[in-house]
Amino acid sequence: MSGNSFGQLFRITTWGESHGPSIGCVVDGCPPGMALAAADIQQDLDRRRPGTSRFTSQRREADEVEILSGVFEGTTTGTPISLLIHNTDQRSRDYGAIKDQFRPAHADYTYYQKYGIRDYRGGGRASARETAMRVAGGAVARKCLLEGYGIVVRGYLAQLGPIGVEEFDWSEVSRNPFFCPDAAKVPEMEALIEQLQREGNSVGARVNVVASNVPTGLGEPVFGKLDGDIAAALMSINAVKGVEIGSGFASIEQKGTEHRDELSIEGFLSNNAGGVLGGISSGQDILASIALKPTSSLRIPGRSLDIHGNPVEVVTTGRHDPCVGIRATPIAEAMLLLVLMDHCMRARAQIPDFDAKHPRR
Amino acid sequence: MSGNSFGQLFRITTWGESHGPSIGCVVDGCPPGMALAAADIQQDLDRRRPGTSRFTSQRREADEVEILSGVFEGTTTGTPISLLIHNTDQRSRDYGAIKDQFRPAHADYTYYQKYGIRDYRGGGRASARETAMRVAGGAVARKCLLEGYGIVVRGYLAQLGPIGVEEFDWSEVSRNPFFCPDAAKVPEMEALIEQLQREGNSVGARVNVVASNVPTGLGEPVFGKLDGDIAAALMSINAVKGVEIGSGFASIEQKGTEHRDELSIEGFLSNNAGGVLGGISSGQDILASIALKPTSSLRIPGRSLDIHGNPVEVVTTGRHDPCVGIRATPIAEAMLLLVLMDHCMRARAQIPDFDAKHPRR
Amino acid sequence: MSGNSFGQLFRITTWGESHGPSIGCVVDGCPPGMALAAADIQQDLDRRRPGTSRFTSQRREADEVEILSGVFEGTTTGTPISLLIHNTDQRSRDYGAIKDQFRPAHADYTYYQKYGIRDYRGGGRASARETAMRVAGGAVARKCLLEGYGIVVRGYLAQLGPIGVEEFDWSEVSRNPFFCPDAAKVPEMEALIEQLQREGNSVGARVNVVASNVPTGLGEPVFGKLDGDIAAALMSINAVKGVEIGSGFASIEQKGTEHRDELSIEGFLSNNAGGVLGGISSGQDILASIALKPTSSLRIPGRSLDIHGNPVEVVTTGRHDPCVGIRATPIAEAMLLLVLMDHCMRARAQIPDFDAKHPRR
Amino acid sequence: MSGNSFGQLFRITTWGESHGPSIGCVVDGCPPGMALAAADIQQDLDRRRPGTSRFTSQRREADEVEILSGVFEGTTTGTPISLLIHNTDQRSRDYGAIKDQFRPAHADYTYYQKYGIRDYRGGGRASARETAMRVAGGAVARKCLLEGYGIVVRGYLAQLGPIGVEEFDWSEVSRNPFFCPDAAKVPEMEALIEQLQREGNSVGARVNVVASNVPTGLGEPVFGKLDGDIAAALMSINAVKGVEIGSGFASIEQKGTEHRDELSIEGFLSNNAGGVLGGISSGQDILASIALKPTSSLRIPGRSLDIHGNPVEVVTTGRHDPCVGIRATPIAEAMLLLVLMDHCMRARAQIPDFDAKHPRR
Repeated sequence: MSGNSFGQLFRITTWGESHGPSIGCVVDGCPPGMALAAADIQQDLDRRRPGTSRFTSQRREADEVEILSGVFEGTTTGTPISLLIHNTDQRSRDYGAIKDQFRPAHADYTYYQKYGIRDYRGGGRASARETAMRVAGGAVARKCLLEGYGIVVRGYLAQLGPIGVEEFDWSEVSRNPFFCPDAAKVPEMEALIEQLQREGNSVGARVNVVASNVPTGLGEPVFGKLDGDIAAALMSINAVKGVEIGSGFASIEQKGTEHRDELSIEGFLSNNAGGVLGGISSGQDILASIALKPTSSLRIPGRSLDIHGNPVEVVTTGRHDPCVGIRATPIAEAMLLLVLMDHCMRARAQIPDFDAKHPRR
Repeated sequence: MSGNSFGQLFRITTWGESHGPSIGCVVDGCPPGMALAAADIQQDLDRRRPGTSRFTSQRREADEVEILSGVFEGTTTGTPISLLIHNTDQRSRDYGAIKDQFRPAHADYTYYQKYGIRDYRGGGRASARETAMRVAGGAVARKCLLEGYGIVVRGYLAQLGPIGVEEFDWSEVSRNPFFCPDAAKVPEMEALIEQLQREGNSVGARVNVVASNVPTGLGEPVFGKLDGDIAAALMSINAVKGVEIGSGFASIEQKGTEHRDELSIEGFLSNNAGGVLGGISSGQDILASIALKPTSSLRIPGRSLDIHGNPVEVVTTGRHDPCVGIRATPIAEAMLLLVLMDHCMRARAQIPDFDAKHPRR
Repeated sequence: MSGNSFGQLFRITTWGESHGPSIGCVVDGCPPGMALAAADIQQDLDRRRPGTSRFTSQRREADEVEILSGVFEGTTTGTPISLLIHNTDQRSRDYGAIKDQFRPAHADYTYYQKYGIRDYRGGGRASARETAMRVAGGAVARKCLLEGYGIVVRGYLAQLGPIGVEEFDWSEVSRNPFFCPDAAKVPEMEALIEQLQREGNSVGARVNVVASNVPTGLGEPVFGKLDGDIAAALMSINAVKGVEIGSGFASIEQKGTEHRDELSIEGFLSNNAGGVLGGISSGQDILASIALKPTSSLRIPGRSLDIHGNPVEVVTTGRHDPCVGIRATPIAEAMLLLVLMDHCMRARAQIPDFDAKHPRR
Repeated sequence: MSGNSFGQLFRITTWGESHGPSIGCVVDGCPPGMALAAADIQQDLDRRRPGTSRFTSQRREADEVEILSGVFEGTTTGTPISLLIHNTDQRSRDYGAIKDQFRPAHADYTYYQKYGIRDYRGGGRASARETAMRVAGGAVARKCLLEGYGIVVRGYLAQLGPIGVEEFDWSEVSRNPFFCPDAAKVPEMEALIEQLQREGNSVGARVNVVASNVPTGLGEPVFGKLDGDIAAALMSINAVKGVEIGSGFASIEQKGTEHRDELSIEGFLSNNAGGVLGGISSGQDILASIALKPTSSLRIPGRSLDIHGNPVEVVTTGRHDPCVGIRATPIAEAMLLLVLMDHCMRARAQIPDFDAKHPRR
């Protein structure tokens, strides 16, 4: 319950609206004895931050995180870690028309239908700004997983509208504002985004995330499956409309002989499973892929209704990303990190020899 | 926790192995005062039952469900409903070779790695047999949702390997063993399955589920989103490798102007969102689609290891479906039903005027 | 949620009514690799069983437990353990008057007010019969705790109405039907119960439970405190009206110098805390004590209402315990066992060196 | 899991240490559409605040609460409400000796044993300061319950060490710093506290809480019982060693004829049950009583160990309450409020006609 918490043993609870004074999260369940500083978290936040390139929203947020509890003299104590970011550029302005209008394909309509009230100033709780705290919580998990098990989670933009990635080089991902692993595609992507900015239109994207050095044995039958929890985690990210594990939808046309990952003494011979068999990690890389829809904050007018039920034409001005997928990579990584950390703890709890099999570093 | 429970307020807990004496589930949280008989549940179980056509596993199970608690004189009491099915055809035989071998792409390997023990007699807890109890629990939810809100959940096979559906007629779905809505495609599907049976191979499938008459306001920001919970529910079904909501992966190449569902006084003009905006139901049909991988129980030998680490060739004999997607439709429906019932209860709990807006029938 | 489950990581879900065909529970989260047979569970069930002495209800139940899942070839597999007991002596009879009457101080009234329906045949879900499954689940926890950590949980009747225990000898507890550690008091207790049986009246009791060899570090601040969870566990037992940890209500009149348990190199010098400081186990024995009210199933008429709101005189005939506390000892033990097992798993999950500090046996 | 959250549907998550920069909580699940201002919460916080009389700790905290999210233009939005209080008087000083010593009967020892680290500056997370946020969360519940159902929760000090209350007048409770309903006893209490302050000693207390206008039907069998959850809530308060519902431990010596609350057309004729039958509210007042131990922060030296295992004499200086029970009344009220709010929501979720029976105001 309480829709704003995620995880069973390693649990984050996020709060805050796009245009309120601050946003934050509480990380509960973190193991004690780990060195943790704001800088460890800032690193990931900086990768998600808006306003860092001309291809994303020009909202300027320092996104400086403060640790308010749970860390004593630089070390985690095992008690809840409270993280807070002040909203600095929530820009007071006249919301005029938008105040009473439902922007098409936004949560405006459903929030209003459900709660009878909505924060019209910028998406409120449904704003992508909320994802900053997922990234912050994920950064804590990242440190736990790396230091505890050597697990590494990385992601990249695999497709931007019609532009798919062809060459793959992890080291390219951090060299461009798209998290694109194919340097040759970056100019195409730049051109597409610039064109969309001129048109006032947007486009969708695909982001892939990969976890390496994952211990075998994470995940529980039958409703606590690792892939089930990954699906929940990734589908809960704003704008995500699809999730795949391993070969995903391509499995439909595969034959069994093609899909099954045969096993040799050198290990698995392929990874159609995406690192999960029967809901439990196999030790192979975890592979997940998500589809992000094109944002609906467009300068091109769209038909909609106002809160009184009258038809209106809605135009969204303001600072919006022409492709929300561009900044989604650190968010998808964060959600995968949170799932893995939770399941490492769940597996340690139940399996008597889990530590013996997967000694902490 | 406890990976064998699903749902927060309307919760099922399933138990039992493919080759044990029985399987069962406990449905907790069901509203009191509803007429409920075993026949209400049997109806859905019969749709999932193996051995009903020559295209699915020939295991013969009556799958007769018993209600052991929670119903008094034909009416639910609000206390836990215990459902049980005896396994009648678990066929004692010599497991010989398979006993010590990991079947490629099965949960054998990961269960053994995690638990250090596995029930080698037929998948144990990872067997598709477990899904019978999801269907049973889903049938209780189905009755609650229909009687309470008029919500209807239906599903169909949208693709079998390379064979996609072209014509759509709901009334065809129950007329063939594939849950196929396109009568013209049924002979092609029959031919494909027969060929796979001869080859000892298998193929994947796509199943779609649709919920109609859904109230607005189901789902919670930000981790209790309706689509996030649907993703978890569907990805937890055996063999599922991908989940889409609405236009799903097609959203990647859509432009914002194309994807956004405009709103008029007659309602939404399209349904790319699949009935969910910002994680909350919009009142449109909920549309979800899943990819099922080809089963890995093949007569064509595959490379693998035994539990001692020696390379082996594995051949799976026995009664297996050449396409697990064929029987997946009632299971996918059940999972969607469980999510919707849970969220109806969650919305009623928090929203003071939920009942006023969505009066129970 | 789902009021019929207890525990986070080691979780039991119970179901079944006093007069239904059977009762049962699902134990989810049990570690794999432990030898488990029905006899291990039967042992504890036999201690709670009615009809074993002339001082308790004469309902005759074999209470033979069956293990339906989760154990393969005598070893737990880590998957849910389903336990079932058939009700054999639910005695069909004419419920006549009682059918429409609320027995004073019973759950009849509140169940009817809440659910609008009640199983009038013997308490339904509110019957003490439900506690059999707590004992069954607790027996599984007992084995895990003993084999994993050497933890031992024992209980005894400390007071029966006005008769308090003076001498204390653990070995006496199993030698009389009262679980009384003071042999000299047994004849007094027998006389009191016989007198109450003649009068058709009842009396309350106090039961104490003690856990020994408890590792330090069980329990979580601030709402997952070990004593908070013990309080919930014990207060959830039928008829319990009070729970104490350590010196309990006597602490009110203690001075700080008297209450504080000083610490020396030989260990703590007293145990007013009852083994818990700040919600976390200190390694001392856990001491808890409960008050059980006198049962309200009396042959002496009492004023009440019928379901139509008319005043009635209610007489409860049938097979009832003149003191429910007599059979409560194994139930209280079971609840403490469940809490400790859950917290051992929770501590292992979060604390990196928990196993190093408290090696499993 | 995540020991720092309480409640299923109305859930608070608290964070923060006594000597950190701030403390806070997140209230998730609050119904939308309710007017809420900081002043509504401040009211209850001011009742708990230290430094308001010479009988409690002289720590001076303004305890001014800020609402950081979940309220838009003065109205709750249904999204998480983040509350924060800055610590203003955490007084930097030399912790010298205490830094390496375990204060007898404090959580120092168990935190160190569990986490391998502790915040020695003032109890850290185990400090009574944490309870401020329970009061804050409880204040939100108080407003929901009063406006929704007319439920009122009040508490009072029933006993201070040996001094019990004899006369009872609700209106006296707010007129003295002890929350004592018997004006005649106040001078005795003052004298006792002053004497303890001189001695450097402390004493225990009893606090009672009462909920009025409670709807029937709150609470769930068998582990979600209302009294079970109340017990967990109250036992989780610092220093609480015992919890009673209704006649509590006095039930032990009662006979059934005396204990059972007979029912007439005018209602119940007594309230030994404390408003709960079979775990479900009966509509009578909910009565709960707690025992608080004498604080162990004493100026009288006590034997203990340091973290290296050497025997030491510990003297606790600083600002401590000679009786923590004096300020416990608002905290106990808060915990009862949280339980009742959670259960109102749980009952609304499951019971189709709950609103019809208990219309919201």
